[in-house]
Amino acid sequence: MNGSGSRKTSGTTKTIVTLSKTTSAPIKNSLAGKLLKAIRSVLPDAGRTYALHEPEFSGKEKEFLHRCVETTMVSSVGPHVERLERALEQYTRAKHAVAVANGTAALHIALKLAGVQPGDEVLVPTLTFAATANAVAYCGAVPHFVDSEESTLGVDAGRLMEHLQAQTENRNGRCINRKTQKVIRALLPVHTFGHPVNLDGMLKIAHDFNLVLVEDAAESLGSLYQGHHTGTFGLLGTLSFNGNKIITTGGGGAILTHQDELARKARHLTTTAKIPHPWEYRHDEIGYNYRMPNLNAALGCAQLEKIESFLERKRKLTGRYREALAGMDEVRLVEEPGGSRSNYWLQTLILAPAEEGCLPEILKQLHSAGILARPAWTPLHQSRPFASCPRMELAVAESLSRRILNLPSSPGLTGDTP
Amino acid sequence: MNGSGSRKTSGTTKTIVTLSKTTSAPIKNSLAGKLLKAIRSVLPDAGRTYALHEPEFSGKEKEFLHRCVETTMVSSVGPHVERLERALEQYTRAKHAVAVANGTAALHIALKLAGVQPGDEVLVPTLTFAATANAVAYCGAVPHFVDSEESTLGVDAGRLMEHLQAQTENRNGRCINRKTQKVIRALLPVHTFGHPVNLDGMLKIAHDFNLVLVEDAAESLGSLYQGHHTGTFGLLGTLSFNGNKIITTGGGGAILTHQDELARKARHLTTTAKIPHPWEYRHDEIGYNYRMPNLNAALGCAQLEKIESFLERKRKLTGRYREALAGMDEVRLVEEPGGSRSNYWLQTLILAPAEEGCLPEILKQLHSAGILARPAWTPLHQSRPFASCPRMELAVAESLSRRILNLPSSPGLTGDTP
Repeated sequence: MNGSGSRKTSGTTKTIVTLSKTTSAPIKNSLAGKLLKAIRSVLPDAGRTYALHEPEFSGKEKEFLHRCVETTMVSSVGPHVERLERALEQYTRAKHAVAVANGTAALHIALKLAGVQPGDEVLVPTLTFAATANAVAYCGAVPHFVDSEESTLGVDAGRLMEHLQAQTENRNGRCINRKTQKVIRALLPVHTFGHPVNLDGMLKIAHDFNLVLVEDAAESLGSLYQGHHTGTFGLLGTLSFNGNKIITTGGGGAILTHQDELARKARHLTTTAKIPHPWEYRHDEIGYNYRMPNLNAALGCAQLEKIESFLERKRKLTGRYREALAGMDEVRLVEEPGGSRSNYWLQTLILAPAEEGCLPEILKQLHSAGILARPAWTPLHQSRPFASCPRMELAVAESLSRRILNLPSSPGLTGDTP
Repeated sequence: MNGSGSRKTSGTTKTIVTLSKTTSAPIKNSLAGKLLKAIRSVLPDAGRTYALHEPEFSGKEKEFLHRCVETTMVSSVGPHVERLERALEQYTRAKHAVAVANGTAALHIALKLAGVQPGDEVLVPTLTFAATANAVAYCGAVPHFVDSEESTLGVDAGRLMEHLQAQTENRNGRCINRKTQKVIRALLPVHTFGHPVNLDGMLKIAHDFNLVLVEDAAESLGSLYQGHHTGTFGLLGTLSFNGNKIITTGGGGAILTHQDELARKARHLTTTAKIPHPWEYRHDEIGYNYRMPNLNAALGCAQLEKIESFLERKRKLTGRYREALAGMDEVRLVEEPGGSRSNYWLQTLILAPAEEGCLPEILKQLHSAGILARPAWTPLHQSRPFASCPRMELAVAESLSRRILNLPSSPGLTGDTP
């Protein structure tokens, strides 16, 4: 019986802390064992696989999908698209929501509408999913990576301010990176794992340095900052309804904005920039095939009706993890920042700096036990496509990426009736 | 009662040929009237609106959508995606089919895999939907517009050959546009309205001028050229399953190729270029969020099971239009090219050159009568985003665009049981 096999066959702490024979250095297995025990008290079924985040379809999903089939309205024109948009507007209090194919498409169009030009730079946290930076690249622009803070896991406003003061100058109202001589056009913070970023700080930086603020709220549907929905503070915000998000449309996303003209342009650009006409096909710019199909919107309408239940149960799950981890000094459960309401999309632990070496072994043991925990993303400046991009000092993000552990976070895990 | 009102209120020929008082030049209404009468003999219900192409859901659509909801597999990973891909491979005899978010995404990735680089030119018919040229632009390349032929409505092989002989030179195995000094990298013909282009001609041009052949088969699922499926002759081919296509997934498309490595790359690029790993997030290039969600694939699986029925009834509909239009010298019904089987996605009439001035009035009258006929697309070189692109002489495409009339083409129009 080898070390790997032993982890698979038992859920008891004793077996799990067996040292792997193939590992050269001694492994600090005690933390992995303690964590598994604590997590098992929240997720008790040893025979089950616990995904990171599973959708729940306890509402009118089937009914709405039926309606699409019955009416043959499955494609980009259809009543569910409009209904979803109105429901998102009501829920987020954004004046306009434009439903699109996915969160990446939403980011791409939002950045174009923010005026991002080929050759520009856009301030993006390095600690985010690749889509945030990919969307910048689709515009022919370059991500300029910024660091995160421990408290919100989002962009560190104070240190970004210092970086911009030291490295940029205002030339005719534009923020110029002195080193690259490029225009820094926009600031694209992310509400990481659903926790609102310091939006007061972001707004001040955007104001002081003439940057357009676009919020990547892909992970934060349901999260509020000082009582207002994330994604509605910047000129534009973007949502994602991917299968792993708090609500899903299969694949989908949305652009939020308070400005009529931007919403009109978003609709135009996402529908191939076709000039409206009953039969003529004429396009006035290079457009995209990015509108959300009605079929996917139907799912979204049913999902959005249940969001309060999802939020409530996810918050309850946080409480369970909090209880289970109480007294463990080696880890910290991420809690919503003061003045914010987080959707707790993901339940996130952060290892104390001294424990960061344990993360690979913790992941292995949790996976062996059927608990599909996840670390943070590899910081983007450490990935091949973005290795040569401009950046500030990124020590906190680098450290966080070695210490973050996301736990199974599905609303269904509390066992309560939906 | 004005001219426009008169058109709306009656389906009889007599009223329809009333001249509009607001028109300065006398309108040749007799052709519009004759056509309406002929089309009405195929589409007899004067109280109904006849869309250009409506999907039909007479198979297992609801059952498969249910299964997605029951299993919670609605997003980009799921059994229906694989099932649709295998079914498409079996149906088209392509070694690989990769399901993606839509036909535009399929084109974008196919062109990238064909090696299209920023600054390149790609030969594209001017008579096509904007997506064909947009996908070229997404690669940072420029469409080089080519003319069409009357018979297939696709790229005119003979005249393109002459154009390339006159305007390009072979430099180190690359086809160089002498005027722009750019590399012409690929040839991207379209199987227009489902009619196979002259693929022998395309293959010869690709061979003789060192071009990569990529087929835009968005409109031609079910169409064969010399017994083989369109989209499988080039290095890559692309399909669309938009709501107006012969089968639909709401929004969707696919990339076809016989090459293992290209299929692997297509899957990689369309799933954000993430390096496979149970928990790590690392990406080795700038990727895209272009995979088809399982929910949409479920619809596609049900639809593809019915394609033979769709093809049969669409062919029958062609027969009805043929009969109805027999003896009208002013128009020609487009028939499948010799040696090809067309899917007859759209039923297409072409006005005789002398009649081209009548097209706007014909469209108005048909729309007033609830028959939502469509002209061809505005040739892309006449649209703002592509006005300055390189091109050959485009007289035939320009003429065709003034003479093409697409008629309602849904398989359900024959009235036969699905």
